[in-house]
Parts: sequence; C-alpha cells; structure tokens
Amino acid sequence: MFESAEVGHAIDKKTFRAAEEALRNELLLAQNALREQGRFPVVLLISGVDGAGKGETIAQLYEWMDPRFLSTMAFVEPSDEERERPFMWRFWRALPPKGRIGIFSGSWYSQPIAGRIARELSRNGLDNRLEQINRFETMLVNEGALVLKFWFHLSREGQVVRLKKLEKDPRTAWRVTKTSWARTKTYDELQDVAGHVLRVTNTAAAPWIIVDGTDDNYRNLRVGRALLESLKARLENSKTPQVAPAVPLVKRIDDRNVLSALDLTQKLDEKKYERELAKWQGRLSELARHKKFTGRSLVLAFEGMDAAGKGSSIRRITAALDPRQFQIVPIAAPTDEERAQPYLWRFWRHMPRQGRVTIFDRSWYGRVLVERIEGFCAEADWLRAYAEINDFEHELVEAGSIVIKFWLQIDKAEQMRRFKEREKIEHKRFKITEEDWRNRKKWNAYQQAAVDLIDRTSTGKAPWVVVEANDKNFARVKILKAICERLEGTLG
Amino acid sequence: MFESAEVGHAIDKKTFRAAEEALRNELLLAQNALREQGRFPVVLLISGVDGAGKGETIAQLYEWMDPRFLSTMAFVEPSDEERERPFMWRFWRALPPKGRIGIFSGSWYSQPIAGRIARELSRNGLDNRLEQINRFETMLVNEGALVLKFWFHLSREGQVVRLKKLEKDPRTAWRVTKTSWARTKTYDELQDVAGHVLRVTNTAAAPWIIVDGTDDNYRNLRVGRALLESLKARLENSKTPQVAPAVPLVKRIDDRNVLSALDLTQKLDEKKYERELAKWQGRLSELARHKKFTGRSLVLAFEGMDAAGKGSSIRRITAALDPRQFQIVPIAAPTDEERAQPYLWRFWRHMPRQGRVTIFDRSWYGRVLVERIEGFCAEADWLRAYAEINDFEHELVEAGSIVIKFWLQIDKAEQMRRFKEREKIEHKRFKITEEDWRNRKKWNAYQQAAVDLIDRTSTGKAPWVVVEANDKNFARVKILKAICERLEGTLG
Repeated sequence: MFESAEVGHAIDKKTFRAAEEALRNELLLAQNALREQGRFPVVLLISGVDGAGKGETIAQLYEWMDPRFLSTMAFVEPSDEERERPFMWRFWRALPPKGRIGIFSGSWYSQPIAGRIARELSRNGLDNRLEQINRFETMLVNEGALVLKFWFHLSREGQVVRLKKLEKDPRTAWRVTKTSWARTKTYDELQDVAGHVLRVTNTAAAPWIIVDGTDDNYRNLRVGRALLESLKARLENSKTPQVAPAVPLVKRIDDRNVLSALDLTQKLDEKKYERELAKWQGRLSELARHKKFTGRSLVLAFEGMDAAGKGSSIRRITAALDPRQFQIVPIAAPTDEERAQPYLWRFWRHMPRQGRVTIFDRSWYGRVLVERIEGFCAEADWLRAYAEINDFEHELVEAGSIVIKFWLQIDKAEQMRRFKEREKIEHKRFKITEEDWRNRKKWNAYQQAAVDLIDRTSTGKAPWVVVEANDKNFARVKILKAICERLEGTLG
Repeated sequence: MFESAEVGHAIDKKTFRAAEEALRNELLLAQNALREQGRFPVVLLISGVDGAGKGETIAQLYEWMDPRFLSTMAFVEPSDEERERPFMWRFWRALPPKGRIGIFSGSWYSQPIAGRIARELSRNGLDNRLEQINRFETMLVNEGALVLKFWFHLSREGQVVRLKKLEKDPRTAWRVTKTSWARTKTYDELQDVAGHVLRVTNTAAAPWIIVDGTDDNYRNLRVGRALLESLKARLENSKTPQVAPAVPLVKRIDDRNVLSALDLTQKLDEKKYERELAKWQGRLSELARHKKFTGRSLVLAFEGMDAAGKGSSIRRITAALDPRQFQIVPIAAPTDEERAQPYLWRFWRHMPRQGRVTIFDRSWYGRVLVERIEGFCAEADWLRAYAEINDFEHELVEAGSIVIKFWLQIDKAEQMRRFKEREKIEHKRFKITEEDWRNRKKWNAYQQAAVDLIDRTSTGKAPWVVVEANDKNFARVKILKAICERLEGTLG
C-alpha cells in the first residue's frame, strides 16, 4: 500500500503561494455553501506516522478556512464518562452536525492500531474491530456524511529527519515527545499493522488517501485539494450517494407469522398477579444491585401498537429500581440538534454508563415502523436500517450492555376497548389523540412492519421478546420475568 | 428552623389510600398540562437527614406520576469531565427542559453542607457558596422554572429508629450503609450546619419546605400536595413571576462615554504589524503550553458591530494554538434544545475543561445587545441579565477560568467601507447580508447598549478590553497582547 505512495514530492514556496491563494478562496466558498445548504457534515480523518505533519496540516486547514465552523477532536485517553460506555460512544458524541466540518486527529483507528502493536489486541480482535469500523463508516456515508480519510506516510529515514527538524525549531519542538522517538523503534510494526488496517478499511464508501508527509507544502496542498474536490462534487450533487445496496424484503407465501401465531388469550388472575409481580420486582431490585451489574448496563426497548401497555409495563419495572439508577427516554419527534445528525445519534446520546439502566419507550425501530409506513424516509433508508440496527445493538452487547427488546402485541378489538376506556377516564383522556385513531387505520401495515423487523433483528445477543399483551397482568409479569432471567443468565 | 417543623405526624393506611387516589389523578393531569404547555420546567430538590425517606418519597413520586417525563439526578462523586469544570457545570447540564420535572437527589447543597461538616470549607467559604446558590435559584425562577426545595427532618432518636427499621426490611436494607450510621454521630453538626444553610437560602424565590420524615405516608402526601398546589398555581398563571426587581438604567447627562472617548486613528504599519504579530503569537503559543495552564482554562468573548473584525481577530489567536486545544463557538439563533433551557444554558454547555480554550464569536451579551434592541425579550429580562452575567463570569473565574471580553469598536464610516469591500470580493460576499444593513440603521441604539453593558459588567475579575479596531493590524495586536499579559499575570 505504502510502496505506491508517491514519496519525496516537494513544492517550492513560490509555487505553493500561487496555488494557495486560489485554493483558499475556493475552500472558503465551498465551506460557506456547505453551511448554507446544511445538507451533510464532513468527517475528516487525519492519521499517520508520528512526525508526518498531522498537526501542521490541521493548522493549515484552519488558516485556509473559517475556523468558526471547524472543530477538531483529539482522542487520547478516554474520560471516565467515555470509558464506562461502548467504544464508539465518544466518537458519536463528537460527530459534526450537518453543515460543519469535523476534523478527527486520532480517531476510531488509533486505539485498534496501537492496541495491535502492543499485542493487547489479537489479529482476530483487530479484524472484528475493523469490520465494525467499516460498517460505521458505511452508515455515515449512507446517512449523507462526506467521509475523507487521510494517512500521512513517511519512510523510516524520512521520519527521523522530520522529527529532528521539528525538534530544532523552538516553535515545534514541543510536538516531539519521548513517545515520538520511542515510536520510531516500532516503525516496522506500525507499517505492518497500519498496512493491514488500511487495506481492510479501504472501502468504496470511505477510501483512504495516502499522502507523503515529507514536504509540508506538498502535503498541505494535497489535502486541501482533495477536500475541495470532494466538497464541490457533493455540493453540486443534490442526491445522497447510497453505498450499500438495500436488500429488498421477501414476500411471504402465507399469513402465518410470529405475531399471528401468538395465543393472546393467556391471562393471569389478580391474586396470582399480585404474588408474581412482587416476586419478580423483588428479584429485579436485587439484581440491579448485584455486584457484577456495576460493570454492566441494561438497555430496554419497548415497541407495540398504541395502547399496548408500554407505559404501564415500564412503570412496573421502574417501581423495582432506584430512580437514581435509571432513565426513561420517550421517543417523539427529533429535536433540530438530532435532525442534524445520523439517525442513530439520538439513541447513542442516551446510552447508560456502567451500573445504569436506560428504558426506551419506542426506540430506534421507529425507522422501520412509523418512518417506513408514513414515508418519512426513503425506502433505501429503512431497508438498510435493519443491518445498522443489528450493528448498533451488537456494539452495545460487545461493550457489556444487556439489551432486551419487547414487542407488546394486542389485537384490534382489545385496542378499541382500551381507546374507549381512555376516553372515559378523565386523567387518561389526554393519552388518546387523533393520531392514535389515524394509526389504527394502518393496523395491517404496522403488523407487517413488526413481523419484518422481528424477522430481521432477532439476534442471539439482542433478542426480541414478543409479549402477549391482551391481558395486562400477564404481559407485565412476562416482561419482568424475561428481564430477571436475562440478568441472572448474564451476571451468573 | 427545625423546632417549628411539625414532628411525629402519622397518617394511617386507610386515610392515605383515600387521599392518594385523588392526588394521583390530579398530579397526572397537572404533569400532562405541564408537558403540553411546555412553558416552564420544575426543579425539585429532595434533601435532608439520612434515613428520612428521600429515596422512598422519590419512588412514590414515580408511582404517582408518568415516569417517562420525570428524571432523577444523583450527585455523588463528580466525573472527571465534571471535576475539570466550574462547580455548577454539572447541575446546569442536568437541568430539566421546559415541560419536564427534574428531581435532584443530592444537589448543589450536598457538597457545601458535607464540606462544612468535614471542616473542608470555612464559614466564609460556605456563605459565599450559599450566596452563589441564592443567585442561581433566583435566576432559575426568573427564567421561569418552578423551584421546590424539600428538607426532610428527623429527630435524633427518630433517625436511629428509622435506620433500624430500614435495615430490618430486606427490601430496604441496602439503603442503609456504613456511612448512614457514621452520619448519626455527626447529627448535631448536621443540624447546626443545615440550620444555617436553610436559613440563609430560605429566599422568596425558592423557600424551603421542611417535612417531618418519620412517617412515610405523611411525608409522601406532604410532598405530593405541595408539588400539586405549586404546579396548579403556575399552570393557571400565564405570567412568569419576576422575583428580582429590575434595576433601571440611569440616563447620562452628556455624550461622553467609554466608546466615544476612544482614539480610533491609532494604526500599526504592515512591517511593524508582522513583527508584533509573530512576537505575541509566539508568546501565546508558549503560554498555552505552560505547565500551570493545565489546571486553568481560557474563555474569550468577542463582541462588536458587524464587520468590526471579530472573525479575523479570532483567526490570529487560533493560529497560535493547537487546534485540539480550542473550540470556537459562533453564536447564532438558539436550537430548540437551547430554547427549552434558561438563557445561559447554551453558554454553560461549551465551558472548556482544564487546559482548554473556548472562544465565543458573539456571546452571552446578546441578551443586552440584540435581544434588548430587537425586543426579543422583555425589558425586565435584559435588565436583570447584567447581574446574572456578572454572577456567571464570577463563577468561571472562581473555578480557575481566565475570562477576557473584547469589544471591537469601529466608526460608522469604517463599517461602510468594509461592507462595500466585502461586496466586491467574491469569497467575502456571503459575509454581508440584508441583516447587516438593517443593523447598521440601529447604530446608535447598539452603541448605547454597548456603553451600558461595559458600564455594568466591567469587573476586576472579568474585565472588558475595549479595542480601537478601525485599523485591523492595531486591533489584532492589542488583542493578542491583552491575552498574553493576562495569562502571564495569572500563571505567574
């Protein structure tokens, strides 16, 4: 990979100044158009060998563009709030909103590469992480982001020359640390590991741009021009490129499905209910204070038709927990800050720290339910969402979260009975709106969408629990029991 | 204070059940109206003696209301992200948005009370903190929040009885820790310190409600009813109560002021500018890497008329800094998440961690500039903003931030020259909009507002630096020099 990088390019000062003037004006105009269109963000990764001029090039980008609409994130040591959450959380929280350019100095590649060189990560571990990165970047691109990845390369001798030169100049001496010199000793290992990483992650969605770092002028112009060309191409093309072909849904041959097969007549009488409720709530309360749970977290998602009993089931769970330990996130229309980010961003931001519980009342499945049915997003968007959701939940589980998803199933007659009941009781009246009646008319479409999502996102690590919810008592106990059993199975 | 608390109230189960039913329905309705109106948030503090039932009452509130629109924050150990920012930052980030109820279990009172009992805080230190708290709560109330503060009281014997009872019940035994018992030993000290704290912070804006914690039923009903009554009163009254009388501005007798007295003819020729710029940028670059700066942070605010050169001055500062160390926050219209919070929230969220720099291009002074002039907020709002801003900056400085505010002054002819220049140059054309021309018509109003704000918010700890900016070279060097000299003076 690096052999093919053009090494040793140099551009003299005069040529540079002339080229710079034009480039700068064009970059400023493109940056402004980016902001005015507000259609997509730019995610710019600057990675590479120590001393190859990453800091200098970033500083140059700040000089060329309007720094008020740039941001640079450095990812060195994670803070404790970051450490207690899944690996990608800190990168999600740092993503630039639409219209902005976010520069990542050090990124999701830093830790895997360093970890592999230090042999803290196995070859397999590295490849799993890289696959995860590929899917993440593909998702970013599909969500509209312009992703540009630069790798600054230096020959072994070139690195020593550069570091010495930086050390000599009092303005840059501080950039060269003991670690920089120590890393020259692992030059070969870095070439090996980085070579592998770059090959595996050189995807159509987000290809690497290898830049020779020897000459400042050459390197800066190369990056500036690549940024400008990509920006201009995206600004002129109003369509978001789709890099993952959507997998169409397969029509079923009969009407039998996971929902129609349910026995909704299952019931629990009041006396038995009280006893079971107390039992499982007591157990949940203990499990949430289990020593091993302090290193884990619990993520619950509730879906189901209107009036299926999501809210009241959640109340039976929270009654067993310490209010300081959990957070309920009711999912309604996104805020404008959420709309300026990839779809899953608004769920990532609520991911619990270790020892905590987050309960979603409706969830990230909105994309393949209401958004699919109401046409709030393109078909390609919701079709690719199944795989993105699986990746998302997989990441949570890998990081130690326990993820359980509940589909609360009622039949159409039961929904009608509950709507009418709500209209009768004063303090429940506000719970029934015009929208509920409109949704009811699309009952079959919602059922079909539910069957599809259960089919496509029932994974071993984040399974769906389908709950027969015509009888509220039965449903609540089944849910509590499912949570307890998962916790017991996991905490041992 | 506690002597007057009614101690020993008990309510039997039957009376409780009857009262609870009505209360619960009303609370649900009020909570829903709160959400639908979306006009104000509820900040509910639950504090008091160990074992007085804080956790139990919070759990009861979750049972009575819709838990999806409640959130409970516990403030035990600050995370490192919180520790590296001003004391109040973690509370600002936890404030509930309009329409929601945020319960604070442990709050801004916990650390001052514990600190005073442990003698880590002097009497004076405590009183300073309490004054700060009073101003913070007054601000919350003026910004529309309904602030309810409960203190749960127990007699010395009552505390021992309660703790023993909690320990006996396996469902609550975990609540009683070694610390709980240790704290019974400092009962007298707690009474002393808490008595003082409650007296000093028992303000008209946010009075304390003392509740006897002995009987669960009594305590829960007391809190539930107080919440309901306050909620209903605020929901029915469409006006936000103003608790701080606005101090009117005093008309001046002549036209001499800090701005008209400036000598705007001051200039720096190109050669001298290049030399001075290099000198001060070099110095700033060193200071930002000064050992002592790792424990401090730098907050810069830029204000001035359109085209005064704020953006280009900021570029001269950032050119001297590592892009990973600073963040520029351009202030435009607030997002909807920001609009759902008190005015200063959107500035607090960007406060830098230790060792970092945040530069605001326009700032929290918008309230007493554009909002005052355009009538975006009521006169009472911007009149009280001066004091709130002084408090805000004072808090930053107390926490180790270095705060510098720049007013860039140009005259009307110079602005016209720059507007025309911008219209001529292609890559600057987007910088001049209809709004700039509209603002120009209000030149005198802006000048008057600027004089007023400099008068009212020039404090020793967060001074205004008024910059003669007709000559860009002169302005840029003056700004860089001012930053360096403040940093040198502070870092020693």
